[in-house]
Amino acid sequence: MKLLDGRVVSQAVKDRLKTQTEERLIQGKKVPHLAAILIGNNGASETYVASKVKSCAEVGFKSTLIRLDGSVTEQDLLFKLGELNEDFDIDGILVQLPLPKHISEEKVIEAICASKDVDGFHPESVGRMVQGLPAFYPATPYGILLLLEHYGIETKGKHAVVIGRSNIVGRPISIMLSKNEYPGNCTVTVCHSHTTGLKEICLQGDIIIAALGRPEFLKADMVKEGAVIVDVGITRVPDATKKSGFTIKGDVDFDAVFPKCSYITPVPGGVGPMTIAALMMNTFKACKAKD
Amino acid sequence: MKLLDGRVVSQAVKDRLKTQTEERLIQGKKVPHLAAILIGNNGASETYVASKVKSCAEVGFKSTLIRLDGSVTEQDLLFKLGELNEDFDIDGILVQLPLPKHISEEKVIEAICASKDVDGFHPESVGRMVQGLPAFYPATPYGILLLLEHYGIETKGKHAVVIGRSNIVGRPISIMLSKNEYPGNCTVTVCHSHTTGLKEICLQGDIIIAALGRPEFLKADMVKEGAVIVDVGITRVPDATKKSGFTIKGDVDFDAVFPKCSYITPVPGGVGPMTIAALMMNTFKACKAKD
Repeated sequence: MKLLDGRVVSQAVKDRLKTQTEERLIQGKKVPHLAAILIGNNGASETYVASKVKSCAEVGFKSTLIRLDGSVTEQDLLFKLGELNEDFDIDGILVQLPLPKHISEEKVIEAICASKDVDGFHPESVGRMVQGLPAFYPATPYGILLLLEHYGIETKGKHAVVIGRSNIVGRPISIMLSKNEYPGNCTVTVCHSHTTGLKEICLQGDIIIAALGRPEFLKADMVKEGAVIVDVGITRVPDATKKSGFTIKGDVDFDAVFPKCSYITPVPGGVGPMTIAALMMNTFKACKAKD
Repeated sequence: MKLLDGRVVSQAVKDRLKTQTEERLIQGKKVPHLAAILIGNNGASETYVASKVKSCAEVGFKSTLIRLDGSVTEQDLLFKLGELNEDFDIDGILVQLPLPKHISEEKVIEAICASKDVDGFHPESVGRMVQGLPAFYPATPYGILLLLEHYGIETKGKHAVVIGRSNIVGRPISIMLSKNEYPGNCTVTVCHSHTTGLKEICLQGDIIIAALGRPEFLKADMVKEGAVIVDVGITRVPDATKKSGFTIKGDVDFDAVFPKCSYITPVPGGVGPMTIAALMMNTFKACKAKD
């Protein structure tokens, strides 16, 4: 019943990147440079992008924030991406999602050059990850791996149960955990809305990744004594006692599960902070690949 | 204990494609055209390619066989692929593997235009498949889905146990079976050489896909009564009683498992023939996508 503390590990990852970036400077090498495109003025997107730009500054990366009006045409956005693809100084490109409805997410993601796809959402990045070729891992599952690695969690031969099969978390983490590397080499079971006997399956999990987006779904009676619990959920639940009017809940019934497990991520402060650390790792790798 | 007969189903798929191709001809539409590149003179490769060319003729597709000397340079091969990519009449391109050692398999596969990648080995094809975008499914796992579909095997909510995590079979079939479509929506467990308690896991399988390449590995005591067994293995085992000196064995101890299961693929004559049927399906789709 030890916390997998995303804030601490995220900071450790960033500290390491900061040192490595300073070393690059001393060696006269290029400093990583992330370009972020923010379209319109969605409040959550503003916050996410601001946090990414701030993290770049913390680790010594360059960043360029490109703000586009919510009415920008798909063609103009694709043209902008073309420019960034061509720009040697830019190592990583991200387009903050969601996009306005008149723009195709698929087209935009596929327009980012795979060698600059630091979000790891391009089909080519996903395919390369699946096939074991060098690839950018998508940020949230990659953040989970960094967390497990930091705490030296043994994964080889362990049974990992993944609840959820989304393209951004459940599906990629299930693949990554079963790959022949560390963290990985797990036997992995992927569960979803059509799974029957979920409780019995979860009880077999040495590691459980809860990524279904239903607050407090994973109860204590679904968890084996000593399991490692990773909670990817982040749902706003109405809470009259809070000034904001809501509390953030994960997919795990934390208070009940905590005493039973060996390690658990808190929400907030678990997987969340790791996502940005993973993005910084990818941007560093994209830059280093050009050396 | 009914056979999943790959020869029968493969023929049914090809008969359907033949009818659809004839309909296209009547409608004045383009007929599917597969280009196959064969390098050197590996006996097994010769047989595989000949069989693909023959299948094209059976269903009314055009095919072009390009034979290149074993000493062909990587550059010349890539140039040839470039020509085929540009050629509007060619719908599907396959390069028979394995390649001579001086040629990079990764480079060659990635040189095939994703829209003509009927083998489904290009990282972009794999990524698109994972993300649920229209994609060419790799032939062997796609053939397994066609087999399950033909026999109307219920898959939703079933527990599928996949033994093996190879890029060409275990990994993709585990993803495909857990997708939100039919055949699919299985709870899927991926097992491999580091899996502990494999027997207990297999005993939970309503469907077992054995794709590890170890003859007669799956024994009767590892199989639940009524399970559906798909045997992807195909290993030559020395056999003095045979003229050829060997017998082909699958990964399943067929004689012992047969009485316990509801459905099982024989080896040979199970998954094998389905692979070519799946390739023909992909070639047809590649052509149709141009309509």
